[in-house]
Amino acid sequence: MADADFPETEFAARTERAQRAMHAAGLDALFFTTEAEVRYFSGFRTLFWQSPTRPWFLVLPASGKPIAVIPQIGAHLMAATWLDDIRPFSAPHPVDDGISLLAGVLKDFNTIGMPMGRESSLRMPLEDFRSLQTRLAGSEFVNATDLIQSLRMVKSQAELEKLRDICAIGSAAFARAPDLFRKGQTLKDAFKAFRIELLTQGADDVPYLVGGAGRGGYGDVISPPTGQVLEEGDVLMLDTGATRYGYFCDFDRNFAIGHATDDVRQAHETLVAAIRAATAIARPGRTCADLYRAMAETIGQGEGDVGRLGHGLGMQLTEAPSLMGFDATLLRERMVLTLEPGIDLGNGKMMVHEENIVIRDGAPEFLSRPAEPDIPVLLD
Amino acid sequence: MADADFPETEFAARTERAQRAMHAAGLDALFFTTEAEVRYFSGFRTLFWQSPTRPWFLVLPASGKPIAVIPQIGAHLMAATWLDDIRPFSAPHPVDDGISLLAGVLKDFNTIGMPMGRESSLRMPLEDFRSLQTRLAGSEFVNATDLIQSLRMVKSQAELEKLRDICAIGSAAFARAPDLFRKGQTLKDAFKAFRIELLTQGADDVPYLVGGAGRGGYGDVISPPTGQVLEEGDVLMLDTGATRYGYFCDFDRNFAIGHATDDVRQAHETLVAAIRAATAIARPGRTCADLYRAMAETIGQGEGDVGRLGHGLGMQLTEAPSLMGFDATLLRERMVLTLEPGIDLGNGKMMVHEENIVIRDGAPEFLSRPAEPDIPVLLD
Repeated sequence: MADADFPETEFAARTERAQRAMHAAGLDALFFTTEAEVRYFSGFRTLFWQSPTRPWFLVLPASGKPIAVIPQIGAHLMAATWLDDIRPFSAPHPVDDGISLLAGVLKDFNTIGMPMGRESSLRMPLEDFRSLQTRLAGSEFVNATDLIQSLRMVKSQAELEKLRDICAIGSAAFARAPDLFRKGQTLKDAFKAFRIELLTQGADDVPYLVGGAGRGGYGDVISPPTGQVLEEGDVLMLDTGATRYGYFCDFDRNFAIGHATDDVRQAHETLVAAIRAATAIARPGRTCADLYRAMAETIGQGEGDVGRLGHGLGMQLTEAPSLMGFDATLLRERMVLTLEPGIDLGNGKMMVHEENIVIRDGAPEFLSRPAEPDIPVLLD
Repeated sequence: MADADFPETEFAARTERAQRAMHAAGLDALFFTTEAEVRYFSGFRTLFWQSPTRPWFLVLPASGKPIAVIPQIGAHLMAATWLDDIRPFSAPHPVDDGISLLAGVLKDFNTIGMPMGRESSLRMPLEDFRSLQTRLAGSEFVNATDLIQSLRMVKSQAELEKLRDICAIGSAAFARAPDLFRKGQTLKDAFKAFRIELLTQGADDVPYLVGGAGRGGYGDVISPPTGQVLEEGDVLMLDTGATRYGYFCDFDRNFAIGHATDDVRQAHETLVAAIRAATAIARPGRTCADLYRAMAETIGQGEGDVGRLGHGLGMQLTEAPSLMGFDATLLRERMVLTLEPGIDLGNGKMMVHEENIVIRDGAPEFLSRPAEPDIPVLLD
């Protein structure tokens, strides 16, 4: 039997919050096909989502526990969650991958909310969704993206504990940088050493590790490592989303190899100053746009290439909201955010810096161990 | 600049094969939103797909190179691929996450194929897809799932090299089992040791690692590790999908802790016999159903809980086709398959065994180092 990541009370509370919001929005049910939403309400956690073969469905009625309509291969693991109503189907199936069974559950509901807006995907074949709509001619599928995002962006105390743990693991791994990274090393070897360090420090998995290196900055912030060799005077950046119990950290660190060039040193100071400008005003009642502007003004640049300067964090590497000028989302206590200012250094080079914080009634709590203005220099 | 995983000729050949199939099917363009398809035709590889925030689009016209319509944050990395036409959009955007730009590209095509059938997802907001359809009233989106799957399931020589490498890494890691797993160890610690071993042996990443342990079998085959302690007489199974250059291995191994009980020993022999029954007939011109029946008859059970006894393998942990009674897909040279027989041991316990093979003109090539009938016993 799988260990539950949270007690039943956690899932009951999530469900109750959702049902209050559903009542207010006039929704009879919520319908989910994606990993994070299925896990949020059920506790079902498996890497088997890596396989695109089978669809997974969760239906949250206006009252009572969620109902899982899932492939037989997941029935045993789902039975270890708090759910009572698990309806398994045989999959892959020649003609009906759970759609009849799902229609049988959904037919009792008139207005069915589902994520279909910003940041959402439909993790089932489009043809099957159309077939479902045809079978449920009396029901209407409506956009419940904001409802779900609004729930998920405020974390419970239990979720904060998980996030604190994985961010502490990330910080501890970065603290070992002087032992892990060195001049003459390839980026591939540096990344491998860091992955192993994260696992050794207690991460379950490292689904995200990107970065770059170069003289005076790097070209982008989403690249996998190459055979490029770290040279004296390079700045090295690693950005990691490691997980523990399915919760992510997401922050980066910059290091100077041998010595820091003046432009890099100054950029790092500016990036840390931008973080401090944001945390100085990060309080309930301020908005995402306020944080964005505080950072953008400190940097003295426009929106730039990266497009946003931070985002929500939790069960996914990035979650709503977005720290952008157009995002008027009010900050609330227990929101977890990344602050991710970037700076354009010219010649196609950039630097980014990222921290993870919790909005509190007062100064925010740092989940990542915050970087100092001076860029750390790695000597041989 | 990112290292390309393949030379341009590889992507040109993939594109040409696709365009021949499009011509035969009367398609003016193919449209993709998902990681594997975008990477297959462009070479664009990044873990940034972990972030659900931004959609990514690739359009393959009936002639010429694919066109990328992607967020600005990916433009630098995409510029390192063989593509010439990259159209970046600002994302997240308050009202238009690339849909106008995408509509401008797609408006020239009447019949647009996209994956919308078995095993497919729509990795963009459903509302945005509907908006796209409305803007493109003169175009029709049709199901091209079979066309794409049929292309991808036959691997190039260059892809086979990648798959050989990662499967060899998996085999080398499993060969170190006597040093990694032991009585008294928790499953969590066993999994961590195996993850680190895979990375040490040369895997880039371990997106999939599941398994179980118990006396006389385990309860399912998709669970994450728990704090359960390995005991004398347990059977331990780890199933891994590690990657290198974005290509997966996917096979498992069973080990007896201290000694093997009779039922486990016999089940392992039967599972290996099932693999051998399948490989004895795995030749071009036979079908997936033939392989399924050869394994099912050796095991002497019906379809069972797991539902299928193997699948395609490549850029994803599982790909088409499926080894099931209803899958009449003809085997072709250079298809890469997993053979994954399972056996029900009663009392809610099961065992599975998995190998990775390439269909050849003659006996198949093993990518995994094939297991012997005797289950390996790990002594202290």
